Amino acid sequence: MRVLYGCSALLLLVILAPRVCEAGKILVFPSEGSHWVNMDIILQALHSQGHNITIVRSSKSWYVKENSSCYHIYTVQVERSSYQKLANLMTEFLKFERGALSLGFLQMAVGMIGSFVDVHKIIGEYALAILEDQELIRILKDTKFDLVLTDPCWGTGIILAKYLNLPLVFNVRWLTPIEGHLAIAPSPLSYIPITRSGYTDKMTFFQRVKNIFFHLMSQTQRYLVTKLAYQPICDKYLGPGNDFNDMVLDADIWLMRADFVFEYPRPTMPNVVYIGGFQCKPPKPLPQPFDDFVQSSGEHGVIIMSLGTFVSELPADITKKISAVFAELPQKVIWKHKGAKPDNLGNNTLVVDWMPQNDLLGHPKVKLFVAHGGTNGVQEAIYHGVPVVGLPLFFDQYDNLLRLKERGGAKLLTIQTVDKDNNFLEAIQEVLNEPSYTLSMQRLSRLHRDQPMEPLDNAVFWIEHVMRHKGANHLKAESYRLPWYVYHSVDVIVFVAGAVLLFLLTVFFSIRCLYTVMCKRKVKRN
Amino acid sequence: MRVLYGCSALLLLVILAPRVCEAGKILVFPSEGSHWVNMDIILQALHSQGHNITIVRSSKSWYVKENSSCYHIYTVQVERSSYQKLANLMTEFLKFERGALSLGFLQMAVGMIGSFVDVHKIIGEYALAILEDQELIRILKDTKFDLVLTDPCWGTGIILAKYLNLPLVFNVRWLTPIEGHLAIAPSPLSYIPITRSGYTDKMTFFQRVKNIFFHLMSQTQRYLVTKLAYQPICDKYLGPGNDFNDMVLDADIWLMRADFVFEYPRPTMPNVVYIGGFQCKPPKPLPQPFDDFVQSSGEHGVIIMSLGTFVSELPADITKKISAVFAELPQKVIWKHKGAKPDNLGNNTLVVDWMPQNDLLGHPKVKLFVAHGGTNGVQEAIYHGVPVVGLPLFFDQYDNLLRLKERGGAKLLTIQTVDKDNNFLEAIQEVLNEPSYTLSMQRLSRLHRDQPMEPLDNAVFWIEHVMRHKGANHLKAESYRLPWYVYHSVDVIVFVAGAVLLFLLTVFFSIRCLYTVMCKRKVKRN
Repeated sequence: MRVLYGCSALLLLVILAPRVCEAGKILVFPSEGSHWVNMDIILQALHSQGHNITIVRSSKSWYVKENSSCYHIYTVQVERSSYQKLANLMTEFLKFERGALSLGFLQMAVGMIGSFVDVHKIIGEYALAILEDQELIRILKDTKFDLVLTDPCWGTGIILAKYLNLPLVFNVRWLTPIEGHLAIAPSPLSYIPITRSGYTDKMTFFQRVKNIFFHLMSQTQRYLVTKLAYQPICDKYLGPGNDFNDMVLDADIWLMRADFVFEYPRPTMPNVVYIGGFQCKPPKPLPQPFDDFVQSSGEHGVIIMSLGTFVSELPADITKKISAVFAELPQKVIWKHKGAKPDNLGNNTLVVDWMPQNDLLGHPKVKLFVAHGGTNGVQEAIYHGVPVVGLPLFFDQYDNLLRLKERGGAKLLTIQTVDKDNNFLEAIQEVLNEPSYTLSMQRLSRLHRDQPMEPLDNAVFWIEHVMRHKGANHLKAESYRLPWYVYHSVDVIVFVAGAVLLFLLTVFFSIRCLYTVMCKRKVKRN
Repeated sequence: MRVLYGCSALLLLVILAPRVCEAGKILVFPSEGSHWVNMDIILQALHSQGHNITIVRSSKSWYVKENSSCYHIYTVQVERSSYQKLANLMTEFLKFERGALSLGFLQMAVGMIGSFVDVHKIIGEYALAILEDQELIRILKDTKFDLVLTDPCWGTGIILAKYLNLPLVFNVRWLTPIEGHLAIAPSPLSYIPITRSGYTDKMTFFQRVKNIFFHLMSQTQRYLVTKLAYQPICDKYLGPGNDFNDMVLDADIWLMRADFVFEYPRPTMPNVVYIGGFQCKPPKPLPQPFDDFVQSSGEHGVIIMSLGTFVSELPADITKKISAVFAELPQKVIWKHKGAKPDNLGNNTLVVDWMPQNDLLGHPKVKLFVAHGGTNGVQEAIYHGVPVVGLPLFFDQYDNLLRLKERGGAKLLTIQTVDKDNNFLEAIQEVLNEPSYTLSMQRLSRLHRDQPMEPLDNAVFWIEHVMRHKGANHLKAESYRLPWYVYHSVDVIVFVAGAVLLFLLTVFFSIRCLYTVMCKRKVKRN
């Protein structure tokens, strides 16, 4: 006997008597690269629900276009140099990850923190450009928006939401520049690995020691970024007593781009909504050239490769090695690659500068995904149940792929070793030939899809919830308003310890006093 | 412009292509009173989805009937005395709350812990009766259930799930005998009040000191209950190394009978699903006698009063006072009351031994709910937006009502003072005459109802999720498997502190050594 899901009866009810929501006015301060690609998907969904979307973009934005048929767009002028610095940073990171910079760990750590501060100072300039554009500010105030939606990996939207006194919703995974949960939820470091530690939720003793060290480093980084890049703007435009980190904690809803099929289970908070994989959808038919190419692959199927939105080209020696490995395979390969084509490209390899990644991953002929490990790609691989050979470049990419590896769905290489020996070829062959990789990813896919509500609809629901109730104060914990020593009951512990000590000392001295008096009496009597 | 909710498009899709679920076999170990009333609602929903429900009840159960047209029921024989003790405990509590027992706080605390241990020993006997019934055990093993569903305020289901090696789902708010979250989620005592403390999430310094003390007391109680009532059964039937508390943490899904409109926002875990208010539903038309009575109330409307499932009668002096107050009111009153009717009953008061509480609360003529503050009643008041005059008796009832009071929806009395002066009358008049009480409850009602999914459907979804995936391991945090000193990184802190101390000592002695050598040389030279 087969029965319908429990929820279907409810769903029918909701459709028969649909609840309605006034069209809202949403103000967006976007970020760049895949962060914008993500945001755009949510904005499209909100737009299709009839909401009005206003975006304030920087004049040098790489991804957010100046004109749009769906959104109202305002552009503020910023210096070209600033965005160039962002691009330079990526190249620096890539060099470091390859071991091409002859720097020690500490040198690199200090350099990285410095670079992060610089990058966020540049983003601060984008916030300043908005705040100093009096005409724009007048329009933003007059429009009476319902909320600000922003990706808090950049601080602009956080400051502007406070300045305009609007409810705030985050589309978040990173927060200037720590993993979002570390700012809002209790995070015991005994089983929550810090990003870039390369650890899982099962750590040895010495891994736990180092994990705490990594945590202190990332907190230092966060402190400096806040202090040097954003707090001065808050002090100038919001007045004293407006702490940037308090403003972060004051966000109404955190739409977290993760779920617990991808992320290790960990403590969370009532105003965190998990929307991991919201960008995934059933595949559409492939455009003609892609379809022809995929169909021609026969029984061997297709491998697709992409290194994401930020890295336009890999060093030539690595590209050449990858190309040579692909040429050896019986599979067809679609390779998203923007740089110069390597001269040893095989006949089986199609190099493209764009591909319909979601539709390809959902195609039954696609057998393997060579991925850099950005959150988007990893979530799409999970959604479609496609195994991965991971080639992480920087940031969280190794950690993201590690989560797939741990669950049996991926094989990992590093950029230092990908061109050594037969590493890359062997990894591809292992993942293609051992069914466990595909089976593991299919299991993750089933788990991920088995949710009461599609993640994108969940995101739209909670954004509309904030609009309907003018915030989500009822979901914000009191913890966000406590100083650290109260939160951790340090004052109570000191008080109780003091009281116990005082009691013990009193008892001790009383006994000693009593003893002395008694001894004296004894002496007297004698 | 008005637009449909974001979720509607999805809902349509789900209905057009409904996901299906095999009919499951669910084994239930129920509890008593309102806990069973709750469980029955979920079981009815599961039954209506085609799942097979098997219940193992105790022969002396007050609420779980021996025969059912919906469920397979097995009855195990237990001593009558055991259930009587449960009833005696309630009477004792009521006396204590009234100040009728001339006991000091410590005497009462010790007495309460002792009573709790006794009660759980009795529940342990129900577990033993099942384990020793070899024919029943054979049937339970042969049936190959998909999961055990239980309310962990009684430990029976937890032990049996382990014994039968089945996935485990909790329908939970209390856990032998602490609030469920305290066992599974990080719970900073700086803003999480312990039940029966009477505090909110905003505590003064001395309240926080006392809150920690209450926590230690409830943990002691939990330790003793586990150690004396359940662990011996685990040791005997499950073999060594099966810790009862570990088995609690190993539950797959915790269906928590709360939500964050009712409960203070606090940390939670991925396998906790909030189903607060799942028992609430739109009102049905009232049965004839109730409808006639309600309609006769005119513009003044109706007050309803109930003290829940456990307390059958209040002391006569209090009953008489309540009756006198009701007689003074222009409203009609429906009073659920099982004891002897007071002789001063007014013409406006209808005493009943059952009432359709949900349908009455949803009736527009019902203006006020006089409630003892059980979770069910409080959730129903929130759902229907009816203000409350609270008359808490024991356990969590004061704390539940405090949550309503804090949010402006209730006025609280205590059982010690309800019959003093005009307390009761004034409370009723204040709540009826000041619109803020009704407006606050209506605001809570709007917030509570604005969820992506009905709580009962959510409960059914996650039970089916566990059946589909044979557990929910992917949602269980690694923290549940760590010893406390690892979880809190105590070993790392001791190690690092030791290493730093060693380093400092080495530096100190090296310098001292160097200084001594240099001094000696100086002396020699002189």
